[in-house]
Amino acid sequence: MEIKDIKKQLVKMLGKDKVLTDELDLMYYSYDSSFLTKLEPGKPAAVVLPTSTEEVQKVVRFAYENDIAIVPRGAGTGETGGCIAFKGGIVLDLSTWDEIVEIDAKNMQVIVRPGVIHARLNEALAKYNLFFPPDPGSSQMCTVGGMVANNASGLRAVKYGATEQYILGLEVVLPDGNVMVTGGMNARVIKNVSGLNLTKLMVGSEGVLGIITQIRLRCWPKPKARGIAMAVYDNLDDAPETVLEVYQAGILPSGIEILDGSAIMAVNQFKPQINLPDAEAILLFEVDGNPPGVDYDGKVIAEIAGKRARSVEWATDPKRMAELWEGRSITATAAARVRADGSRIFAGEDISIPLSKIADVLRAIRALGDKYGIKVVNYGHIGDGNVHTAPVINPENPEEVEKVLQLVHDIHLLAIEMQGSTTGEHGVGAVRRQYAELEHGLAVEYMRAVKLAFDPKGIMNPEKLF
Amino acid sequence: MEIKDIKKQLVKMLGKDKVLTDELDLMYYSYDSSFLTKLEPGKPAAVVLPTSTEEVQKVVRFAYENDIAIVPRGAGTGETGGCIAFKGGIVLDLSTWDEIVEIDAKNMQVIVRPGVIHARLNEALAKYNLFFPPDPGSSQMCTVGGMVANNASGLRAVKYGATEQYILGLEVVLPDGNVMVTGGMNARVIKNVSGLNLTKLMVGSEGVLGIITQIRLRCWPKPKARGIAMAVYDNLDDAPETVLEVYQAGILPSGIEILDGSAIMAVNQFKPQINLPDAEAILLFEVDGNPPGVDYDGKVIAEIAGKRARSVEWATDPKRMAELWEGRSITATAAARVRADGSRIFAGEDISIPLSKIADVLRAIRALGDKYGIKVVNYGHIGDGNVHTAPVINPENPEEVEKVLQLVHDIHLLAIEMQGSTTGEHGVGAVRRQYAELEHGLAVEYMRAVKLAFDPKGIMNPEKLF
Repeated sequence: MEIKDIKKQLVKMLGKDKVLTDELDLMYYSYDSSFLTKLEPGKPAAVVLPTSTEEVQKVVRFAYENDIAIVPRGAGTGETGGCIAFKGGIVLDLSTWDEIVEIDAKNMQVIVRPGVIHARLNEALAKYNLFFPPDPGSSQMCTVGGMVANNASGLRAVKYGATEQYILGLEVVLPDGNVMVTGGMNARVIKNVSGLNLTKLMVGSEGVLGIITQIRLRCWPKPKARGIAMAVYDNLDDAPETVLEVYQAGILPSGIEILDGSAIMAVNQFKPQINLPDAEAILLFEVDGNPPGVDYDGKVIAEIAGKRARSVEWATDPKRMAELWEGRSITATAAARVRADGSRIFAGEDISIPLSKIADVLRAIRALGDKYGIKVVNYGHIGDGNVHTAPVINPENPEEVEKVLQLVHDIHLLAIEMQGSTTGEHGVGAVRRQYAELEHGLAVEYMRAVKLAFDPKGIMNPEKLF
Repeated sequence: MEIKDIKKQLVKMLGKDKVLTDELDLMYYSYDSSFLTKLEPGKPAAVVLPTSTEEVQKVVRFAYENDIAIVPRGAGTGETGGCIAFKGGIVLDLSTWDEIVEIDAKNMQVIVRPGVIHARLNEALAKYNLFFPPDPGSSQMCTVGGMVANNASGLRAVKYGATEQYILGLEVVLPDGNVMVTGGMNARVIKNVSGLNLTKLMVGSEGVLGIITQIRLRCWPKPKARGIAMAVYDNLDDAPETVLEVYQAGILPSGIEILDGSAIMAVNQFKPQINLPDAEAILLFEVDGNPPGVDYDGKVIAEIAGKRARSVEWATDPKRMAELWEGRSITATAAARVRADGSRIFAGEDISIPLSKIADVLRAIRALGDKYGIKVVNYGHIGDGNVHTAPVINPENPEEVEKVLQLVHDIHLLAIEMQGSTTGEHGVGAVRRQYAELEHGLAVEYMRAVKLAFDPKGIMNPEKLF
């Protein structure tokens, strides 16, 4: 079908307010936050903004009948090209469908439409002393639907796990336009082992199986207290050792973050008044729970860290906690400014590695940066081995672009070689699908078989994931 | 193929020590703990006891080529007939394959073969101050492989979730005999979102997709302290109200158990010296964490429960904790003795319901018991709505058998009607598959499609799950 006919049909179905066909709009939808889309944007034929299951069904049925690709999209904060229609097709922007359908506080759950912003959901839940624990860095922008599609997490995954842990059930529009409900058609339970777990199969499926149109989420009691410990290391290897010893003391902090030497330098250069100590690594521990429990954990952490660290500080005062955390919270921004003419690019930014190999991997990444002459800033969620790597280049310089793509490839291969994964929380999308066989072997064939069972015509977010 | 030829071929493949063909042995494998198998045992053609992936592959390939059903089995503690070869075929008993392959304490994980007993795994992990949190009642007998296949949990699921939450990766022998590794072929990470989540699809798949031959499990730091609160209620509705208020106070206990009037009576009749107070309900809260944190939570729980309960007691002394918990720990045994000539039957024993409807459901089950003239004892994991119902009958009396089957059916329908599930943690197996469509609607078609993608010949644990 010709693009102009697709547009015409969509307008006929949804009305012109819900269909974007303007070139400038389509340009906007050609990008997400990945470096890939800066190099190769992918322009859709049209964008639709559905706000009901019926509207999604209409569009999907139309696409199914006419063999048109469908690419679902949340807020576009992803770093993998996962929401980009690289070969045309219809982008289904679900971000305007942002209804909190019901907060069922008595049953510790909430039902939302996919476009609800993560931070707004937690604001609404706070009134009931509840929260949805996963906390992506993009909390103020990203949608819960996008979090489900990518199985997002964030710095509290150490204790609270990823999004999947909280998903009780989903409404999904399948490629043929039918509606499937997982986790029990009419259920409001939080524990249910009936049938194959299609809910967890859908979480993290990045839009290749169907369109998530409603989410039933488990909420948790909101802890009353928190505390922050900062430990400063002259020796990189001491940082993971401390983490391990904290675990062995029976403590599961809500977050454990690392800034290596490159990140410390970036932060101090960007905002000198923060004045982080010049060191090989800084660890930040966040603990939550009840007030005396938090205090106890903090003291144990300080004692353990004190064995190896140059200095340790423990704080529960909100002002001091914010000061200790500030370096970490601006790291991503600071990384982008380590070169006056440079930009941080989002590529190879999400490897996950075994805790026992973190120090080696950080050193290896530094060496790779030196090899290619590219500045690389490292930080991330050391507690679960998820390292965020920020290469900084001048993206207008084709030679640097070529080098950084090679660097990123080497980082991905390094992660796999070190018994890690190319992605801890950001997903595969278009940028990491080349590693599927290397990471998963035969399992990829079964991923494809599952995809085929749901989407025999291959219209759902094609050429993503594997 | 004739049964005698199947036996002959299996002996040729594995040697006669690993193949059971004796009638007495086959009789043993005709049962699990379900009432169904007492009524209708299912005798396999043969039982094999493989202790390597290669041996499992040999048997599965043989079955695949000859269209013979394969039924995997752990310790046979299941209550659903899930490990029974109702129409013959080969039972694959994995319980003798009980190797702990590696405790990788530095990376917070352990690798085991399917036959490891749950309690033994936790004993081994305790040396590293680690534990695998799910805690089925059958911990001393059940295998970790069986726990994965059924996505088992237990009374600590309130805080720690079910088995699935801890499974990082699996080795699976597929119906065609090939070996698939999920969660990364060579990975040792604890955070990984690469690819469709086949790991979580396999967990709880009850043997219908493949044979789990190795399990990579995440371990957690073992908490240092625990405490128990007991609250006694004259009014059943006050029990769930207390649970909700505890959550709203920011507390997530590691377990919240209920004994209703029927269970209290059963316990006192069975062991009068326990002398539980005569009441409509008893709640038991278990809290774990660090010592001052546990103490604080206990005091808050006691204060909240005190608003509605007749009496509340909080204990951290191990002896007193054991006394408070004793009533709960013997409930299952006590239930079986409420009638001198009766047996507790395992059927309809695992419904899950929304917290807000627990009191109504317990009353409705009592009324159903009265209607059919059958004693029913109720207890369970109120914190996540998982109620264990124990009907007690004389199983030699055909009239009582007929009535109890009707009662159990009504309990399952009640659970679905009350927005619950027919199974919170025990699984579907053979006994609950008739409810699949009612619970899941269209999703069942996609469960079947996934099954077909893995097992086109339908040899893997046929006629289970849906």
